[in-house]
Amino acid sequence: MLRLNLLRLCAVARSPSHFSALPPIQAKFRPAMAFSSYMTSSHSSAGNNLLFRQLFEKESSTYTYLLANISHPDKPALLIDPVDKTVERDLSLVKDLGLKLIYAMNTHVHADHVTGTGLIKSKVPGVQSVISKASKSKADLLIEAGDKIYFGDLFLELDDAFHICVRKGQNSRSVLGTAWVRGTPGHTLGCVTYVTGDGPKQPQQRMAFTGDALLIRGCGRTDFQIFTLPKDTLIYPAHDYKGFTVSTVGEEMLYNPRLTKDEETFKNIMENLNLPYPKMIDVAVPANMVCGLQDLLAKQVEAVSN
Amino acid sequence: MLRLNLLRLCAVARSPSHFSALPPIQAKFRPAMAFSSYMTSSHSSAGNNLLFRQLFEKESSTYTYLLANISHPDKPALLIDPVDKTVERDLSLVKDLGLKLIYAMNTHVHADHVTGTGLIKSKVPGVQSVISKASKSKADLLIEAGDKIYFGDLFLELDDAFHICVRKGQNSRSVLGTAWVRGTPGHTLGCVTYVTGDGPKQPQQRMAFTGDALLIRGCGRTDFQIFTLPKDTLIYPAHDYKGFTVSTVGEEMLYNPRLTKDEETFKNIMENLNLPYPKMIDVAVPANMVCGLQDLLAKQVEAVSN
Repeated sequence: MLRLNLLRLCAVARSPSHFSALPPIQAKFRPAMAFSSYMTSSHSSAGNNLLFRQLFEKESSTYTYLLANISHPDKPALLIDPVDKTVERDLSLVKDLGLKLIYAMNTHVHADHVTGTGLIKSKVPGVQSVISKASKSKADLLIEAGDKIYFGDLFLELDDAFHICVRKGQNSRSVLGTAWVRGTPGHTLGCVTYVTGDGPKQPQQRMAFTGDALLIRGCGRTDFQIFTLPKDTLIYPAHDYKGFTVSTVGEEMLYNPRLTKDEETFKNIMENLNLPYPKMIDVAVPANMVCGLQDLLAKQVEAVSN
Repeated sequence: MLRLNLLRLCAVARSPSHFSALPPIQAKFRPAMAFSSYMTSSHSSAGNNLLFRQLFEKESSTYTYLLANISHPDKPALLIDPVDKTVERDLSLVKDLGLKLIYAMNTHVHADHVTGTGLIKSKVPGVQSVISKASKSKADLLIEAGDKIYFGDLFLELDDAFHICVRKGQNSRSVLGTAWVRGTPGHTLGCVTYVTGDGPKQPQQRMAFTGDALLIRGCGRTDFQIFTLPKDTLIYPAHDYKGFTVSTVGEEMLYNPRLTKDEETFKNIMENLNLPYPKMIDVAVPANMVCGLQDLLAKQVEAVSN
């Protein structure tokens, strides 16, 4: 009950009519639509100037995304949600493809793996780390909703994915500390979704990198901002535990087993998940507050970040 | 030494001048080319009529691919290399997307997992299993190089990927039996690569489903037929152990650590891999010879296949 109230409180704090203004989710999410309107190839639209690669880290089932503007002479590139254990692979691919890495970005402070951003910064001079200001973490660029991240003339927009994570309970709260605002375990204002730009030269079919806010046919809750994107927007989450690699906004509106429920049912589901204490959380969260570099390198990171 | 000779023998059997006509691989595979000529987005070209999804089975690191023609009224679909353990997921996705599954295909007789084709046939009436004639396996359609597999007005062409697998040793030979022709463990004429068609309405950037013939930055050897495809052809292998999801012909020509070596060096590498006996081989290969259904269902499968 406490948790339910906290969730409501936060939703209200963000937008006074946030939940109340919306009709029940089930009704809202089952519009009559032609299937074909959002059934798209994951191949169909990025255009010739965007290079896109999806990479996978098996242990934490994390997806890392590489995006680059290959029509620009420098071939500027960025990585979203790199993992420390696969930094060598990612940098090797960046090198193979002749790209210039300029950003190493996170969708949120991960609790299940250590981010690769710090390690990348130590190996590739000039790379800037990026995370939301609301995460209260260290990074070179602290971004807010509405910000644009340019790589050449392509850009990502920031969609502030205010959502309910699966995480719950007192243990999480004490560990998560300032990263998870308002003392609301299982809920963070620091989570963001990066979305490809809307405009000339941008990929025709938009792509949303949703972090943990929206998983494919899985849990996750957004503040519905993700679902205001076009239905054919490709959904690229931070994780997938079932082997999916991509979905679309339209598909998740119809088939996500949690987001198709009404608010009360959704809360009941989330309160009864009985998930174990995340095994990496004690290591991952403190490290991820400083770009994945702890202890010995903490001061160095601080100097770079400030 | 025996193995080296066997490899040579098979290459010769297939094409008298197969190896000898080719210059050293390293020289051949390092053409002067602009990076951008083959650096493509995995998103850029499939067109609006092809729905494409890449799916992952974690235990065997196997990729299953779903392709469908969504501009056709029936939305005909096919699955390449389905795994028995993830059949429910795959069929659920097919249903969610409103597709009509018509083919369940294999690139070869897998030794590391049991194919899902038999299970799919038992659950979805009308689905036809597909494998190469050279594999000597049971299936509804036994195909040969040059054959086209139509789904609506889209089609896959068959590229006979005559290649050297990593598998080696006497143990494999006895188990693989007739599936691995000419008693050449580590080598099969039954392996094929499915390639999207070349022609009007077909995806502009071709896609090659290479099975085990060519892995991303990994082992595998083709008879060079894959490398005659356009350099921007997207490479979708049957497995990836490092977390890559896609590559291109051009990239593998430059960066595949084995295929960039000359023939002798390549053979030395392959002969000294010292791989363990594949743990699933005794179960997987006999099952995969009959679409993944053994014992109880064997007669039923035979009736369907004949």
